[in-house]
Amino acid sequence: MKKQPPYYAVIFTTVRKEGDHGYDEMAVKMEALAEKQPGFLGFETARSEIGISVSYWKSLEAIKQWKNNSEHLLAQKKGKEMWYQWYKLRICLVEREYEFGQY
Amino acid sequence: MKKQPPYYAVIFTTVRKEGDHGYDEMAVKMEALAEKQPGFLGFETARSEIGISVSYWKSLEAIKQWKNNSEHLLAQKKGKEMWYQWYKLRICLVEREYEFGQY
Repeated sequence: MKKQPPYYAVIFTTVRKEGDHGYDEMAVKMEALAEKQPGFLGFETARSEIGISVSYWKSLEAIKQWKNNSEHLLAQKKGKEMWYQWYKLRICLVEREYEFGQY
Repeated sequence: MKKQPPYYAVIFTTVRKEGDHGYDEMAVKMEALAEKQPGFLGFETARSEIGISVSYWKSLEAIKQWKNNSEHLLAQKKGKEMWYQWYKLRICLVEREYEFGQY
């Protein structure tokens, strides 16, 4: 990701319900869709007891557009109904960053 | 976590080297130590191909104090030498948050 701060991060921390119920398929689809959105900068995800997914965006406007994407709205609805026991979503301004080593 | 925005998040995204080399023990120790620092608000961690750990703080000053904690400085040194192939650390201002369901 070439973008330097300031830019935005959306931290999405989740506790899943039992079972897949189409989650994995939708997660792959949504990541691919997010990558095509204007202002998308990057995506990181990991899961242990909780899941943490962070998406990076050029602006609040880009985050708002992604939030209101019609396919994404459907995924959000299913998320509440079927996949997530709990989640917390935080909109953050990335002010500084430091990097070490080679990815 | 009772704290409402604005507060700070430190997103620490990592790619590990092979082997433990004392990492797990230090990770537990550092989490316990962080929790005792002034201004600490919370911690979330998950690992898949990459690791994502997010710590939450009351202020930039609290983050700076934690960065310069002597035991933490030693862990940071070992991190570069032994545990991490790559990492990226982002200092973020949490502007808004939304929560769903019960943790």
